[in-house]
Amino acid sequence: MPASPNRVLFFDTTLRDGEQSPGATMSLSEKIRMAQQLELLGVDIIEAGFAASSAGDFECVSTVAREITKARIASLCRTVIADIDRSAEALRHAKQSRLHVFIATSPLHMEYKLKMTPDQVLRATDDAVRHAARCAGDVEFSCEDASRSDLDFMVQVCKVAIDAGARTLNIPDTVGYAMPEEFAARIAYLKERIPDDVVISVHCHNDLGMAVANTLAALRAGARQAEATVAGIGERAGNASLEELAMCLTVRKPYYGYEHAIKTDQIYPTVRTLSRIIGQPIPLNKPIVGANAFAHESGIHQAGVLANPETYEIMTPESVGIASNNLVLGKHSGKNAVKTKLEGMGYHLDAAQVDTVLGAVKSLADKKKELYDEDLEALVLEEIYRIPDKYRLVHIGVQSGDTGVPPCAMLVMEIDGVRREHAGFGVGPVDALFSAIATVTGRKPKLEQYAVNAITGGTDALGEVTVRISEDGAVGVGRGSHPDIINASARAYVNALNRLAKKREEISREQEA
Amino acid sequence: MPASPNRVLFFDTTLRDGEQSPGATMSLSEKIRMAQQLELLGVDIIEAGFAASSAGDFECVSTVAREITKARIASLCRTVIADIDRSAEALRHAKQSRLHVFIATSPLHMEYKLKMTPDQVLRATDDAVRHAARCAGDVEFSCEDASRSDLDFMVQVCKVAIDAGARTLNIPDTVGYAMPEEFAARIAYLKERIPDDVVISVHCHNDLGMAVANTLAALRAGARQAEATVAGIGERAGNASLEELAMCLTVRKPYYGYEHAIKTDQIYPTVRTLSRIIGQPIPLNKPIVGANAFAHESGIHQAGVLANPETYEIMTPESVGIASNNLVLGKHSGKNAVKTKLEGMGYHLDAAQVDTVLGAVKSLADKKKELYDEDLEALVLEEIYRIPDKYRLVHIGVQSGDTGVPPCAMLVMEIDGVRREHAGFGVGPVDALFSAIATVTGRKPKLEQYAVNAITGGTDALGEVTVRISEDGAVGVGRGSHPDIINASARAYVNALNRLAKKREEISREQEA
Repeated sequence: MPASPNRVLFFDTTLRDGEQSPGATMSLSEKIRMAQQLELLGVDIIEAGFAASSAGDFECVSTVAREITKARIASLCRTVIADIDRSAEALRHAKQSRLHVFIATSPLHMEYKLKMTPDQVLRATDDAVRHAARCAGDVEFSCEDASRSDLDFMVQVCKVAIDAGARTLNIPDTVGYAMPEEFAARIAYLKERIPDDVVISVHCHNDLGMAVANTLAALRAGARQAEATVAGIGERAGNASLEELAMCLTVRKPYYGYEHAIKTDQIYPTVRTLSRIIGQPIPLNKPIVGANAFAHESGIHQAGVLANPETYEIMTPESVGIASNNLVLGKHSGKNAVKTKLEGMGYHLDAAQVDTVLGAVKSLADKKKELYDEDLEALVLEEIYRIPDKYRLVHIGVQSGDTGVPPCAMLVMEIDGVRREHAGFGVGPVDALFSAIATVTGRKPKLEQYAVNAITGGTDALGEVTVRISEDGAVGVGRGSHPDIINASARAYVNALNRLAKKREEISREQEA
Repeated sequence: MPASPNRVLFFDTTLRDGEQSPGATMSLSEKIRMAQQLELLGVDIIEAGFAASSAGDFECVSTVAREITKARIASLCRTVIADIDRSAEALRHAKQSRLHVFIATSPLHMEYKLKMTPDQVLRATDDAVRHAARCAGDVEFSCEDASRSDLDFMVQVCKVAIDAGARTLNIPDTVGYAMPEEFAARIAYLKERIPDDVVISVHCHNDLGMAVANTLAALRAGARQAEATVAGIGERAGNASLEELAMCLTVRKPYYGYEHAIKTDQIYPTVRTLSRIIGQPIPLNKPIVGANAFAHESGIHQAGVLANPETYEIMTPESVGIASNNLVLGKHSGKNAVKTKLEGMGYHLDAAQVDTVLGAVKSLADKKKELYDEDLEALVLEEIYRIPDKYRLVHIGVQSGDTGVPPCAMLVMEIDGVRREHAGFGVGPVDALFSAIATVTGRKPKLEQYAVNAITGGTDALGEVTVRISEDGAVGVGRGSHPDIINASARAYVNALNRLAKKREEISREQEA
């Protein structure tokens, strides 16, 4: 598939491995939004899910396959015929599709997890890849826990997969155990033993902080596909960060000599979109995209940068799409201005949706002097990408002070359209509000996480609240943004309850089916 | 200094380079607390500051030098005689001290920042290191921006430094530009050309996400000192993360074969203490210490871990000091219980301080059912490690709801002991409160950052608020914790104002001096 021998393919798995990051669950519409942004970013392959794992994953793979036209869409499958068929069905309408078949090849995984002998693994690989190749032209095969597998057995499995029709071989460091030189040696060993036209891919986890370094070492040893996620989200400590890989290859182009298709000025917008969707802030010192990545604090550094920015900067903020905050919209902005602005940000909304956003812009402009791109984005995610509500807030009020009366909250809600009201106390107004909402909805969730971040500067900034709750083992993450953080908190909590309710409905639907 | 040729020294620069991280400013008492924790962690050298850069840094270096007995204490100096004298003075009472002299050696830095010729840099190195060696037995020399320096010139400068008395040579990747193989080649080249008893050190920045990988590659090429910071904080994207380095060397001990003195079960307590002090949460997917680092989300992974934890875990949470939350104290806990618990956490407080904490514990226990280690730590930082207040909150109250009356706040404060009161409106109760405080104190700061994190689970969790404000170019970061986030927000804002006021006083004292 690569046009030149030095072309590196980016395989993004934010929607699959990334979504396995605790708390990073996304709704279907959020995943589609993310896929659109990944296409803008220029990734070659988007792994949209594991179609056989749930009805939600199936729906996501098939919708992304329909909506995305430039990137190839992949679905993960075990070496199980039914998994492959389900993935093939989900990918039916894709312009370009890929079946990604995996099985573990390490002694530990074969013995304890698969309970299979090496021979059984070889046979399962042969059967599954052969079936997948009949279903789709493009098959990728992964040996899970490859970095802890016997090297010659790993090569043997890979050869079986090639003979059965795989065109890409993925070597994952599933548990983030590898170190760059040994991982590179493993890749070089494999590369010598397979045909030149088979692409070697790597998929590195970051348990010891080496995911990006291992991926780069593998590329130098002959790999030509990098599996990565935006901001490195994923199982445990996550995957290789796509933006770090892309910027290493770009800033150090003369050293590496590889081509890639990532549009680096879409990096920051992509990370920001993900951060907003999963309600997790970008860590301040995250390389390339953190708020501190281009900040110079010490006097010596500041003097150097004034004399010549290159003294302390090896890339510019503009090269990764970090622009200074742009004043965008205000109370008097019209429908066209909003529509144009949204399209520039990659949002293609219909007329009714633009009206909804416009209304929210005007209402926010009444409260907040200056509206930035980030405020607009928060409004779109709040107004358009939310799931339909079972629980709906109608009115809230809080009162708190050291008067002897404990902090209290009063609220009116609608539950499936029926009006309910309640007032109650708490250790603070947010606690009072959450208790009142729990009472009114009859739920008893445990609050696992509560976080607020101001989206832009100023005391009138939109506060963005993330709430994570759990009930009977299921987890719901909700987000709310509003200039009043009490209000934002209530919205986030109700949003989390709605998501939890939707999850419960899906589970009971699947159990009935 | 290393006992065996395979002993790696850890040089921690959390208090110096780490503190250059925007928003990570620490007070003197916080730095001492951090230094005590670093000593518990087992670092070999603590860089406590850049003594000549400010009165605050001088005070920190000299206090840490007095308080810490096991680790060697270092102070940074330019190749300027006055810098070296000032550092030597600050280190006078240290059990073991180190002068860390640096000058830039890259063409870019010499021409634009230093405005010096290579010959002048050689001469400055010779003079400064010679002077430092007369002041202290232990001198480390750093070539700033070494990774972009002419290799032979860098070696020449290093040889001059060795002849003048340096026993440690530090090779920093100041701008985070290096890649592991080329950086290792640079270290190997230097290693071949200097005496065996000189220790090579590396100091890597993380702009491209390669700081840990570069440091490990350098160790394999002959370096024996790693400069690092807790959680990787530092200028821009930060430094190599100490905990990632230590765990790579520990988990992969048979591969690396190096000894080190880090007590890995102090890793999590150390990162948590730093996070609490600088008011920045630990990112969820931060390797080793993030909340997700040991979480298994996908069904396949969970099944594997149940069958055998090693299928997906290469280290245990316990090995890095992550214990399940311990129920510790309650309403009926006495002074001895509190004192013992605090000592176990590394806090050595006097009787009056223990009384203060006990009072806070009892008051919190009235509001919150279960008190954890983390709650206790938050109380200690809130009650003991705060700077004395110019501005003090006496009473606050807020009211908010969709009644047509905008959200409003009422408050009573003391300013230098004088009572003032005010009530006013805002877009939300927090905004109203911040405006009222600004009015009462007569300040007009800009709110740069506002963030809330629940410290432990549950709706009655302590909310920890971080506020970052700026006024006339000076930045103040404040923290407040309270079960009521409105109250915590007010405390954080007032704390930030107090810190800003203290900073202004220090600046005007220095200008008078």
